[in-house]
Amino acid sequence: MFESAEVGHFIDKKTFRQEEEVLRKELLTAQNALRELGKFPVVLLISGVDGAGKGETISTLYEWMDPRYLSTLAFADPSDEERERPYMWRYWRALPPKGRIGIFSGSWYSIPITQRIAREMTRGELDNRLDQINRFESMLVNEGALVLKFWFHLSKEGQKVRLKKLEKDPRTAWRVTKLSWERTKTYDDLQDVAGHVLRVSNTAWAPWIIVDGTDDNYRNLRVGKALLDALKQRLESPMGQSVAVAPPITPRIDDRNVITALDLSQSFTAKEYDRELAKWQGRLLSLSRDKRFAKRSLVLAFEGMDAAGKGGAIRRITTALDPRQYQIVPIAAPSDEERAQPYLWRFWRHIPRQGRVTIFDRSWYGRVLVERIEGFCSEADWLRAYAEINDFEHELVEAGAVVLKFWLQIDQEEQLRRFKEREEIEHKRFKITEEDWRNRDKWDAYQAAAVDMIDRTSTGQAPWVVVEANDKGFTRVKILKAVCQSLEAALEQD
Amino acid sequence: MFESAEVGHFIDKKTFRQEEEVLRKELLTAQNALRELGKFPVVLLISGVDGAGKGETISTLYEWMDPRYLSTLAFADPSDEERERPYMWRYWRALPPKGRIGIFSGSWYSIPITQRIAREMTRGELDNRLDQINRFESMLVNEGALVLKFWFHLSKEGQKVRLKKLEKDPRTAWRVTKLSWERTKTYDDLQDVAGHVLRVSNTAWAPWIIVDGTDDNYRNLRVGKALLDALKQRLESPMGQSVAVAPPITPRIDDRNVITALDLSQSFTAKEYDRELAKWQGRLLSLSRDKRFAKRSLVLAFEGMDAAGKGGAIRRITTALDPRQYQIVPIAAPSDEERAQPYLWRFWRHIPRQGRVTIFDRSWYGRVLVERIEGFCSEADWLRAYAEINDFEHELVEAGAVVLKFWLQIDQEEQLRRFKEREEIEHKRFKITEEDWRNRDKWDAYQAAAVDMIDRTSTGQAPWVVVEANDKGFTRVKILKAVCQSLEAALEQD
Repeated sequence: MFESAEVGHFIDKKTFRQEEEVLRKELLTAQNALRELGKFPVVLLISGVDGAGKGETISTLYEWMDPRYLSTLAFADPSDEERERPYMWRYWRALPPKGRIGIFSGSWYSIPITQRIAREMTRGELDNRLDQINRFESMLVNEGALVLKFWFHLSKEGQKVRLKKLEKDPRTAWRVTKLSWERTKTYDDLQDVAGHVLRVSNTAWAPWIIVDGTDDNYRNLRVGKALLDALKQRLESPMGQSVAVAPPITPRIDDRNVITALDLSQSFTAKEYDRELAKWQGRLLSLSRDKRFAKRSLVLAFEGMDAAGKGGAIRRITTALDPRQYQIVPIAAPSDEERAQPYLWRFWRHIPRQGRVTIFDRSWYGRVLVERIEGFCSEADWLRAYAEINDFEHELVEAGAVVLKFWLQIDQEEQLRRFKEREEIEHKRFKITEEDWRNRDKWDAYQAAAVDMIDRTSTGQAPWVVVEANDKGFTRVKILKAVCQSLEAALEQD
Repeated sequence: MFESAEVGHFIDKKTFRQEEEVLRKELLTAQNALRELGKFPVVLLISGVDGAGKGETISTLYEWMDPRYLSTLAFADPSDEERERPYMWRYWRALPPKGRIGIFSGSWYSIPITQRIAREMTRGELDNRLDQINRFESMLVNEGALVLKFWFHLSKEGQKVRLKKLEKDPRTAWRVTKLSWERTKTYDDLQDVAGHVLRVSNTAWAPWIIVDGTDDNYRNLRVGKALLDALKQRLESPMGQSVAVAPPITPRIDDRNVITALDLSQSFTAKEYDRELAKWQGRLLSLSRDKRFAKRSLVLAFEGMDAAGKGGAIRRITTALDPRQYQIVPIAAPSDEERAQPYLWRFWRHIPRQGRVTIFDRSWYGRVLVERIEGFCSEADWLRAYAEINDFEHELVEAGAVVLKFWLQIDQEEQLRRFKEREEIEHKRFKITEEDWRNRDKWDAYQAAAVDMIDRTSTGQAPWVVVEANDKGFTRVKILKAVCQSLEAALEQD
């Protein structure tokens, strides 16, 4: 969920000045158009960890736009008046009217998150509140509102660094309170709770945009551009009917992401590989025979560019398993029978029972990769798929499954090398087809889709493991190790 | 919720035979078209109380249609295989493919309802399950499925009568088991739990259709026609994109409904009226001063045809209250400020704090009455409003409010008499406008909209009280009495 916000985004001062100049002009124009049209309000939520720059970014938005048509609502503890009415009453009262932008600093999400961390709310109560929030936001969007939800993220270390930096600067020292430091102690709890909250409320009609809070320039541009894009898109669309339109995937503002941040040069010597492979295969063997695994199951999904080494990695896993225990499900085009069902059906049918393992060689993520890129489904379809997939994996986890997803990343040179090698070697020739060459032309589209996918579906309970796959040995060991560690952690909980 | 299913629907044998002949031909044609098109599946849920004729109706559907393209799934306790996988797995496995009709007898709703009645599930757990079910159904509809959910209802007495009748007939005696009789003991619990389940899962994309189970002919025709209408509507709509289309309000098959079933001749003599009025006003006065009311609030909404006597009834309530304690909110066309907000905003702003009363003279139901009829909002807008209104009232109740809604029903003659009277009496002349005469022309449309409204938004926690309003005395006393009794019941819980 937060992976993309930890890849070290940074915008230098000069670039920022240039981009800012264009951005603020365009924002002002869009804000005026919004006001003159007077047809829909903008509801902007700024949430996130302490010290991630919520206040600074709100100030910047005020600098960039006409403050007379902005309103910011900060919510402290509810007043008596508010406590005596339904939970949502205070937020209803604060909604911006059509034509205006209302910024919610601390929104309807703040109290549930705080209360859950303090264990004043059970998980069930939290989920009920989130359900209520989802219905509320759905109603807002159906009523025409443009809802943008930002979550400002910092890594654990990053939070401390930032708080210290803020404290040193007399202009920002006041932002850091004793409470800020106290809250760093519950960083892990916050990540846990926020991860869950964001997953459940990451709806097609009001998705979360997670922003790396470390660098002021990057953060401000990211928010400003996302706001501008969403505003422009809505202003240009026909306005009559109020319909829920899922906002598009927000464009990136630099080229750093979970994939480009990888160090693909990582590799093992043959000796290292042999040693590590034996070690983790042994570990997996014993874990799969552990008594406690009889009450668990394991679901692994493999995705990656062609020739990234999925098959080889899968074989290194199955070698360590009892053949009666696992099933490999290769996913190609759906059969007639499968085509007559919802797209998730063909994966549901292969869900393992307890004590068993299912390995999907390509998976339900085809919906947001190949189907998205080739236009096999509509934009609305793949946009809603992120939430449906998260729900699906959530149900697997609730039923005791350990769920892991692997994205195997190679670079284009390595892919070419492997393609050529396959064409040369007789017995590997069947592996390379015209389609592989065609897909190669769509490299950038696949990379972008993969980044979106990882951002929107990597959850605490069913994480993506992004694997530097140029070296086959390194790849296989990293995967085996991740499987063992996740399995071990799950069994220890039982 | 269940009011409409207790008004005594009955179709005589001759009418049934005639209608059946037409219906089965049309159903068969539609089923064939569905199969040939092969573009979407039909998911038909048949649920409800024991003895309400679920089995009989399913048999009838098999008679009427081609059984080769029907499948019926009955679910008993989950098998080992099923228990070891996520809750929804067994239902996924049973989904009908495109072009087919799958009948679920006992569906994903059965286990949560049974477990909740047995208190094996908390209210929170139930709500989480319902949330999961709603997402699942939303996904099905987005994937193109036509989802029809029927709930067969019987009154408490009606259930016993039917079970005895079934037992007597050797052809149906086998349907009545010991368990059926045992379950009659938990009738009230079932109504409670089912009322909640149906409210929460009565979504715009897959609403419940509640069917009176008493009369076989009525019940079978009701289901058959609803299925036919929905099928025809889907077959005629353009099929390309898979989009969630809310099914239309199902047409009635006879003229009995919660309004036509009323006995409007009920009235009080002047003496009875004085006595009863004094009695209930006194009761309301003391209830409103009850210490426990300081932690409660009261929200009353009045709707009805023009000149039905809303104002007079409201005055008889406020007379018994401290003027500082209540607020009357007359709802006319929205102000500019209100128009710039979601339609529910102008009601949220008037929500009473604890110890207070808000009386809405016309209300949020305008959305599904005048706005629906006059076309002030789109069909999609008023269709989703039922669920949004239920959510809104649910939040009020959760915050401690007692919520009651009154529909004041007069007949057309009485309305005409009152209109003329108003035109004659000087000080009442302002009350009658051109618009009133115009609305009168739309009498039938308003009556139909009111029935739909009551069916879809009368819940256990925020019920509609339908008032026979031809006699003003009777009207006012019935309303006062309902307010007192609901308030009393709520205060006794505390």
